[in-house]
Amino acid sequence: MQISGKKAVILLSGGLDSATTLAIAKSAGYTCYALSFSYGQRNKHELNSAKLVAESIKAERHIILNSDLSIFGGSALTSDIEVPKGRTEEELSHGVPVTYVPARNTVFLSLALAWSEVLEATDIFIGVNALDYSGYPDCRPNYIRAFEDMANLATRLAVEDDRKIRIRAPLIDLSKSQIIQRGLELGVDYGITNTCYDPKDDGYPCGGCDACHLREKGFAEAGHVDPLLLRFNSDVS
Amino acid sequence: MQISGKKAVILLSGGLDSATTLAIAKSAGYTCYALSFSYGQRNKHELNSAKLVAESIKAERHIILNSDLSIFGGSALTSDIEVPKGRTEEELSHGVPVTYVPARNTVFLSLALAWSEVLEATDIFIGVNALDYSGYPDCRPNYIRAFEDMANLATRLAVEDDRKIRIRAPLIDLSKSQIIQRGLELGVDYGITNTCYDPKDDGYPCGGCDACHLREKGFAEAGHVDPLLLRFNSDVS
Repeated sequence: MQISGKKAVILLSGGLDSATTLAIAKSAGYTCYALSFSYGQRNKHELNSAKLVAESIKAERHIILNSDLSIFGGSALTSDIEVPKGRTEEELSHGVPVTYVPARNTVFLSLALAWSEVLEATDIFIGVNALDYSGYPDCRPNYIRAFEDMANLATRLAVEDDRKIRIRAPLIDLSKSQIIQRGLELGVDYGITNTCYDPKDDGYPCGGCDACHLREKGFAEAGHVDPLLLRFNSDVS
Repeated sequence: MQISGKKAVILLSGGLDSATTLAIAKSAGYTCYALSFSYGQRNKHELNSAKLVAESIKAERHIILNSDLSIFGGSALTSDIEVPKGRTEEELSHGVPVTYVPARNTVFLSLALAWSEVLEATDIFIGVNALDYSGYPDCRPNYIRAFEDMANLATRLAVEDDRKIRIRAPLIDLSKSQIIQRGLELGVDYGITNTCYDPKDDGYPCGGCDACHLREKGFAEAGHVDPLLLRFNSDVS
C-alpha cells in the first residue's frame, strides 16, 4: 500500500516490534504520530529508546503520555513482583506470565483512539504479534478485531463522519525473525531499541527474561547479530 | 439483584449520574471501588465532588488517576474552546457537541478494566444514559455492548479464569428525572454532586450549559428542588 497525506497513530514502546511497526507505517506513506506511555514501568530505558526511535524514523510528532497504571498493581513490569528469568520453551508456551500488565493494550489503544480522533487519523498501528507473543491475551487477532468493532461505535469521527477506524497490526502473523528481517530491509536501527523487561542500570539487557529470550532467538533465526549487543560490546564490533 | 462479597469498579465523575450509579451498585451489595480521572478537565470542582460522593456512599476505595487527555486537545472540556451556553432543545438534539471529549468513555472504561482485573472484579459500572445524553456516541447501548465483547477477549481474568466481564449501565434507559427519583430513593445527596461544565470559581453552576440544562429539567420533572442550588442559596432553604 502507498498512501499520501494519510495520518496514523503508532503505539511506540521503544521495543523491536513497535520500531518495526513505525517503519512499516512510514514506508506505507503515512504521516506518523507516535504515542508512548509513562505508565509506571520499572524499565526507565524504554522511553528513551522510544524517543530515539521516533527521531530516527522521523515521526511527525511524538507524545509521551503519563497514565500511571502502577497505581493498580498486579504486574511484574509495574511493581516489585520479580521478573521471571530463564524460563524454558515449555514454560514460555503456557499461560499468561506475571509480566502481563492488566488491560495494557486496551488502555494504550484507547488513548491512541482519543488522539487519532483529534488528528482525524483513521489508522492506528500496534506492534502485537500472535506467534512470539509471550502468552498475552491482548495480542491475539480476535482481540484486535473486537477493539476495532468497538472503536467504530465509540467516536464522533466514526459515527458522524462515517470514517472507518482501522486497527492495523502488521506483525500479527510474523515470527520474531521475520519481523527483524522486515525491519532490517526498512533500515530500522535495532541498536537503539529496548526489549528487555529488566535491564541493568546502563540499559544492557538482562539476557534471561522472556523478552530477551525471544529477541535472541529471533536474531539467531534471522542470521544477524543483534546491533544492541554490538553497541554495548564495542570490542566485538 | 443482591450480591454478597462481589466487587465492582464504578466510574465516578462526581456528577449526578455517576453518584446515582455508585448508589445503585452499593445497594445491590457490591463492594465498590470508585475510579475518577484527572484528565485535564477545566472544571476543578468535579474531583472534589467525586471525593465527597465516594465518602458519602462509602466506597471501599477511591482512586483518582492522572491521565492527561488535554495533551490531545479537541474538546471544550479540556481546552480553551468555549463551552456553549443557552442551546435550544432543537440544538441539543442534533449532533455531537464541542464538549465531547474524544474517546473519553473508552479511555475511562479501559482503565476501569485494568483495575477490575487486578481486583478480580467482574463488574464495571458506568453512568451513561442514552436518553438525556447530550449526543455523545460513547453513551449508546450498542457501544457499551461492543466494549463488553472486547473486554471479554482482552484480559487474563476473562481468558484464563473464564470469568465473564460485565459492563453495567443501569441508567441507560432512564430519563434524567427517573435517575433523580431513583437516587433520592437510595438517599443520594445531590447537594455534593457537580454537573456543570463551566462552574463559577466557588462551584456555583453556570445555569446555561447543556449539562445544567438537562439537570434543571430533570429536577423540574421529578418535582424536586435541586439541593445543590439550596446549598448555595441558603436563604432559600
